[in-house]
Amino acid sequence: MALSEFDLISRYFNQSGLAADPAQHTSVVLGIGDDCALLSIAPDQQLAVSMDVLVETVHFPAGADATLIAERALAVNLSDLAAMGARPLGFTLGLTLPRVDERWLQSFSHGLRESALRYRCPLLGGDTTRGPLQIAIQVHGLVPAGTALTRSGAKVGDDVYVSGILGRAGLALSVLQNTLPAANAGQRAELLAAYYQPQARLALGSALRGIASAAQDVSDGVLADLAHIAGRSRVGLQLEAAAIPVAPVVRALCDSSKALELALTAGDDYELVFTAAPAERAAVLAAGLSARVAVTRIGVVVPGSGVEVSTGSGELLQFAQQGFQHF
Amino acid sequence: MALSEFDLISRYFNQSGLAADPAQHTSVVLGIGDDCALLSIAPDQQLAVSMDVLVETVHFPAGADATLIAERALAVNLSDLAAMGARPLGFTLGLTLPRVDERWLQSFSHGLRESALRYRCPLLGGDTTRGPLQIAIQVHGLVPAGTALTRSGAKVGDDVYVSGILGRAGLALSVLQNTLPAANAGQRAELLAAYYQPQARLALGSALRGIASAAQDVSDGVLADLAHIAGRSRVGLQLEAAAIPVAPVVRALCDSSKALELALTAGDDYELVFTAAPAERAAVLAAGLSARVAVTRIGVVVPGSGVEVSTGSGELLQFAQQGFQHF
Repeated sequence: MALSEFDLISRYFNQSGLAADPAQHTSVVLGIGDDCALLSIAPDQQLAVSMDVLVETVHFPAGADATLIAERALAVNLSDLAAMGARPLGFTLGLTLPRVDERWLQSFSHGLRESALRYRCPLLGGDTTRGPLQIAIQVHGLVPAGTALTRSGAKVGDDVYVSGILGRAGLALSVLQNTLPAANAGQRAELLAAYYQPQARLALGSALRGIASAAQDVSDGVLADLAHIAGRSRVGLQLEAAAIPVAPVVRALCDSSKALELALTAGDDYELVFTAAPAERAAVLAAGLSARVAVTRIGVVVPGSGVEVSTGSGELLQFAQQGFQHF
Repeated sequence: MALSEFDLISRYFNQSGLAADPAQHTSVVLGIGDDCALLSIAPDQQLAVSMDVLVETVHFPAGADATLIAERALAVNLSDLAAMGARPLGFTLGLTLPRVDERWLQSFSHGLRESALRYRCPLLGGDTTRGPLQIAIQVHGLVPAGTALTRSGAKVGDDVYVSGILGRAGLALSVLQNTLPAANAGQRAELLAAYYQPQARLALGSALRGIASAAQDVSDGVLADLAHIAGRSRVGLQLEAAAIPVAPVVRALCDSSKALELALTAGDDYELVFTAAPAERAAVLAAGLSARVAVTRIGVVVPGSGVEVSTGSGELLQFAQQGFQHF
C-alpha cells in the first residue's frame, strides 16, 4: 500500500529534534502541516514560506511548453501564500535540467518573468544543476503577526466555502492524455489554461484575513484538502453536492456524477477552500467581490471528523479517490 | 561548450522584471549573485535565504548512505548562511524519491535530525514527491541589518583568508571511484568524512561580522569561488601557493602539484574564503579561535581582476580547471 505524502511526512520528518517545535524554537510560529511555515521575524510581521517541487511526468507531461510549466510552478507556490493570507516577497528557484537547452531556458524564464511581474514576486536566487527535469520553488511572503489563515481554526457551525469553479484542471489531464475526443478546440483551451495557468488567489486570501476561520488551497482535491482542515481543526465538514460549483465546461463534457467527482476529488484547481462564521457571510461575499472571484458556500462545519458529501435527500455520496496521491 | 551555472543564471534569470531589484522591491536588500538573498523584514534584522539542490549521481553517488546524504545536504546549505554571517532559523525540504523505501527514509531522516540538532536548524516544512532522487533544501537565517558578509566588499590591500584545510573532499571522489589504491582505511575514512560531513562554519561566519570585508563558502573550489569575490568586488586576488593550507592527508597521497591543484580547484570543502583589512589581522585570528577553526592568510587583494596563484619566486601557476562546473 502506497503511503500518501502526508503519512510520509508525518512518520519520518515530524519527529522530535528534527521538526520545528514552536515551544523550543521561538522564531517558529507554525511548522510542518499547514500551507506555509510561519516565522516570527519582527514584532508585527510574520514570514510565510512554502516549497513545492514539480517533476516532469509526475506534475506535468514530458515535453510540455516551458513557459506554461514556469507559470504553473510559480502560481502553485503562490497559492500556498494565498491560503495563509500572505503578501508575496519573492521566490527562490532550484532548477534541475538534463542539458543546457537554450530555447527551453528562454521559454521557461519568459513564463517565470510574466508571473513574477503579475504577482509582484521577483526571483531572489537559487540553484541550477544537471539532472532529470525538476523545478523546486520556494515562495516567501509577509503577513501581519497573528492574522495568518491556518488550517486549524474551523469551528462547529461555521460555513464552508470554495472560490471559483472546480474540475477543469482535473479534466485537462484527459485532454493531455487524448482521452476526451468530445471536447472542441475552445473547451480544450479552457481546460488546459485551467491546468497550466491557475490563478493564485492572493487578493482573496488577503481579503479573508480576520474573516475566515481556516483556509487552504485546493491542490490535491477539494475533499482531500478539506480533510486537512477537518483534521487540524478537529471537526467534521458536511458538504452539499448541489452547492458544489462545478465548472460549466466540465458539466458539458461529463455526466453529472463524473463532473461532481472531478470537482471534488481532482487536484490542481488551486482555488481556496475556507471556513467562516455565519456572522461573516456579508464580509465573505465582499472579500470575493474585492478580489474579483466567485465565492460559493458549499457546506457547514459539524461535530465529528472527516468530510461528507450529501445530496438534497440526505443520501451520502462515496468517492473512490479522495484526491491526488503523491506516492 | 557547456555553460557554467553562473552564466546560465545570469543570462536567463537575471533579466529585468524577473530578478529581484532592490531599487524596485523595497524588501529585497540583495538578490541573485551572493551566497544568500537578503530580505529586509524588520528595522534591525534581515532574513538570509539560500536554496541548494542535490541530485543523485551528480552531487552524490548512487546508493550512497542516506544518513550521510542528509547530513551533507543540510551542511552544504548552512554553509551559505555561514558565508553571510547569518544565524540559522530553520529549513524546508523538497524531497523527490523514486519509491517509498522505508529504510532509506528512516536513515535519511535520522541524518537530517542529527544535523538539525547540531546546527539548531529545525525542519519547517516542504514537499515530498515521486521522481528521480533529488534533495532541495532551503535554509533561512537572520543577520543584524547591515552586517551580512557579502561577496562585494573586498578592497585593494585587504588580506585573503581561508578557514580549515583544503583538498580532502576533492580527493574523496577518487576514493568513491576506487582510483586511489594507495589510501589506507584511516585515510579513506578521513577523506569520505570530509566529503559527506562538511562542517558549516556558522560560528566563524558570525564571528567575522564587522571584521571581514567579503566572504563566500568554498563549494566549487577556492579559485572559482574567490573569482566571484574578485568579480563582485571589482578587484584582483593574488594568492601564494606556499600559504595554501593543503590537508596533510592530501599531501601524503598526492604529489605536491596535484595536492595543490586539489586544494585550489576541487569543490566541496565548504570552508570559508574571505577578505579583511590588515588592521583586522588580530581580530580575524580571534574569530578563528572563538570558532575553533584554523584561519590561514593565503594572499592579498590587488588592483585588477581575477585570481592568480604565484610561487615564492613570483612564477604564476596555471590550473586546467577553475572548479566544479555544474553543466
